[in-house]
Amino acid sequence: MCQLLGMNCNVPTDIVFSFTGFATRGGRTDIHNDGWGIAFFEGAGVRHFVDHQSAIESPVAELIRRFPIKSKNVISHIRKATQGRVALENCHPFVRELWGRYFVFAHNGDLKDFNPELNGSYQPVGTTDSEVAFCYILQELRRRFDDALPTLPQMTAAIETLCSEIASHGTFNMMLSDGTALFAHCSTNLHYIVRQYPFAEAALCDEDMKVDFSEVTTPNDRVAIIVTAPLTTNETWIPFKTGELKVFIDGLPLP
Amino acid sequence: MCQLLGMNCNVPTDIVFSFTGFATRGGRTDIHNDGWGIAFFEGAGVRHFVDHQSAIESPVAELIRRFPIKSKNVISHIRKATQGRVALENCHPFVRELWGRYFVFAHNGDLKDFNPELNGSYQPVGTTDSEVAFCYILQELRRRFDDALPTLPQMTAAIETLCSEIASHGTFNMMLSDGTALFAHCSTNLHYIVRQYPFAEAALCDEDMKVDFSEVTTPNDRVAIIVTAPLTTNETWIPFKTGELKVFIDGLPLP
Repeated sequence: MCQLLGMNCNVPTDIVFSFTGFATRGGRTDIHNDGWGIAFFEGAGVRHFVDHQSAIESPVAELIRRFPIKSKNVISHIRKATQGRVALENCHPFVRELWGRYFVFAHNGDLKDFNPELNGSYQPVGTTDSEVAFCYILQELRRRFDDALPTLPQMTAAIETLCSEIASHGTFNMMLSDGTALFAHCSTNLHYIVRQYPFAEAALCDEDMKVDFSEVTTPNDRVAIIVTAPLTTNETWIPFKTGELKVFIDGLPLP
Repeated sequence: MCQLLGMNCNVPTDIVFSFTGFATRGGRTDIHNDGWGIAFFEGAGVRHFVDHQSAIESPVAELIRRFPIKSKNVISHIRKATQGRVALENCHPFVRELWGRYFVFAHNGDLKDFNPELNGSYQPVGTTDSEVAFCYILQELRRRFDDALPTLPQMTAAIETLCSEIASHGTFNMMLSDGTALFAHCSTNLHYIVRQYPFAEAALCDEDMKVDFSEVTTPNDRVAIIVTAPLTTNETWIPFKTGELKVFIDGLPLP
């Protein structure tokens, strides 16, 4: 299995603190050492980093820990291979374009007998069930809404239906973002927290590292962190329910 | 205008030497400081780095200069903005998927009155004429060959026709790769060199840096470097003809 980390904010924020704890699970405090990846939206563009090395050994991960890239939507993944060999093309997150927007996707779980009919509009490059699921979601969004970008409620309803369908084949914890919203679906393990004014200190579980967010934020900042397992010891993380899809915009889950 | 750098090899090779000279033109020895990017194929996967900072200031470019990523097909670009503002989504190279393969594309030049009809299968995310050209090429390849990967001669003929059509709108120096072949089309400026046994020493034009390739290669290695303007002072670079498309495989241009 793998682990997921997502961030959705109302102002561009760096993910150095959370990524540092998360990346430690990529081979040191946990066993997810079959590659990793991270994607940052920056306006309409995406910075996409993947590596088949473990996140604790990768020089690219070292760059991410040191170079504070600011973004309103980030998705990261550390991999413990289940389906698909250890190779760059099997590292999450995956990126594709639909309606002139980049979509970023990462998955934790394992799908059985999941062989949807792909019409060729999106085809997997690697050999993971996850990339098949991503291609299927984009194909079906395109099919339902044709060339027109749907409204957020329309897109949410469609993604909810598709996630339920895919989750009937196994475990489907996933994160998907088009740079505006971050969609997170839980089969088994997903937690989130919203950090906002008044900000407090947080301490990582996986590293001896603390940060006082009140020193690095303004009162208007709001940041949602979504992750497989809680990253900090002194904050209250809210677990997702099984089968739940949450949509995060501007650092808040929609009600 | 911008500058292009491509590499095509028979064995995975790092591009540190050539990129070091090339990146220096991104703000120091030349004026291409409106962003840069590089994409490395690694098997079927792609490592894609883009930055709106200049290549001499970018910490990501610093990583590329220090971390020898080995690849058989690399495309890099330093940008001097003509169409489209300085933003991440306008940095080349661009990446899209077709037939379950990633395609990587970068362009140097300026297209006028180029408004092809895009059917939605690929839509630009940014605002450059270059990304429109890339979307158009992939759409037309998909339309001509449907869901089946064509043979290399079929694909080459189609790309040649498309390049001629696009080049009728202005300057279209471009590089395109599907991870197997590297296609390079010249309107105005493109040069290449093939380095193979017996290897010799090369000295960069833009930096005080030399490398003796005989020390870092085996007799079987073969590397083609394609670039807007020659990178070294002591090698013979072969200029492309206007309107010429060359296809590089395993470090050699096809006859």
